[in-house]
Amino acid sequence: MKQERAVRTRQLLIRSAAEAFERHGFIRARLADISSSAGVTTGALHFHFANKEALASTVEATAAVILRHAARSVQQPGANALQRLTGVSHALADRLRHDVVARAGFRLNCGDGPHPGALDLRGEWFECIRRLLTEAGDHHLLAEGVARQDAAASIAAATTGFEVLGRTDPAWLSPASLSCFWRLALPRLATAEALAALGLPAGEPVRRPHDVKILENKN
Amino acid sequence: MKQERAVRTRQLLIRSAAEAFERHGFIRARLADISSSAGVTTGALHFHFANKEALASTVEATAAVILRHAARSVQQPGANALQRLTGVSHALADRLRHDVVARAGFRLNCGDGPHPGALDLRGEWFECIRRLLTEAGDHHLLAEGVARQDAAASIAAATTGFEVLGRTDPAWLSPASLSCFWRLALPRLATAEALAALGLPAGEPVRRPHDVKILENKN
Repeated sequence: MKQERAVRTRQLLIRSAAEAFERHGFIRARLADISSSAGVTTGALHFHFANKEALASTVEATAAVILRHAARSVQQPGANALQRLTGVSHALADRLRHDVVARAGFRLNCGDGPHPGALDLRGEWFECIRRLLTEAGDHHLLAEGVARQDAAASIAAATTGFEVLGRTDPAWLSPASLSCFWRLALPRLATAEALAALGLPAGEPVRRPHDVKILENKN
Repeated sequence: MKQERAVRTRQLLIRSAAEAFERHGFIRARLADISSSAGVTTGALHFHFANKEALASTVEATAAVILRHAARSVQQPGANALQRLTGVSHALADRLRHDVVARAGFRLNCGDGPHPGALDLRGEWFECIRRLLTEAGDHHLLAEGVARQDAAASIAAATTGFEVLGRTDPAWLSPASLSCFWRLALPRLATAEALAALGLPAGEPVRRPHDVKILENKN
């Protein structure tokens, strides 16, 4: 029973710390507020965490567990790489939108925390994008002339934008918001057959690659 | 001569403050370091700026001037709305990449500063996106079935991502990075004629709108 209570207290402190980090930022968050929001004494807080840095590291590590679990939970057998890519993006956005520990931990890990650690959550997501696009290419799901690097960079930038904008307005992390982007990107990215597998009408000609040098900045 | 020197000192202080805010964040940046980097005494700093908040506000206001000027400078007579949209995106990215005052001011204004003011630089950019997409629609430059709101949200998210990722790695703000995104988005967004005006090969069938309900999160 005593051990159960300790586990419960620890979870309350992690959540309370995530709320404080989100509201005030790491530097301004106060341990006294974190312990009182969790309904425990500062002594109890220090039993679990040596200092604010230790709390921040634990919030980050917990976010990693939550987000990796969410990413794995949408992996259905038989789903192709593009289906998995959109599925993982929605699963991550859902956790960031609804779970303050995931949101605060991700943000701390992206440079708002006390110091860089071994964990790189944004890097993990970008690696997941690259891996799934490589697999999509290998399985002939990508439209002719789509450069995987272009696609990976665009998806990385857009999803980073949704995460950052979602910090102040959760609507940016809604399924509808994310779908806006996929509706724009997928018809360019995927072959007609792959679009059909994604539930999109197939049978339309696939666009050719374009030379867009003129779009680059001339300055 | 005295007035010229005062103007010059003020500019040096703004630049030095921008560098300090970028390196240490607003809270941790120290006025003593800002004045010594600018080669002036703290007394001279206080002649120009009452406190750190006043310095931050001036960095933000200066960033606004720089970015609005950059956006206007690429407006060529006769360019259509999509050409202007890509042009402005490149011009803003160029300033954020090369000018520490633009970069630090934009970041302070996006929530890293001391308090929210009247200035909303991200909001101004999003409004610019919406205005140009509306104009593009009115001038029949948008492919059939493209929802302007979808396009605006995607462009807003992706460019926010480029800005945020560019804070730690300027390569994200390079013309090549931004072009990755436009190469992906424009063939879906624009009519064949508009693509031709953007220097893209025209004459290909325009894709139809798709129903992508299946892409939305089922959780």
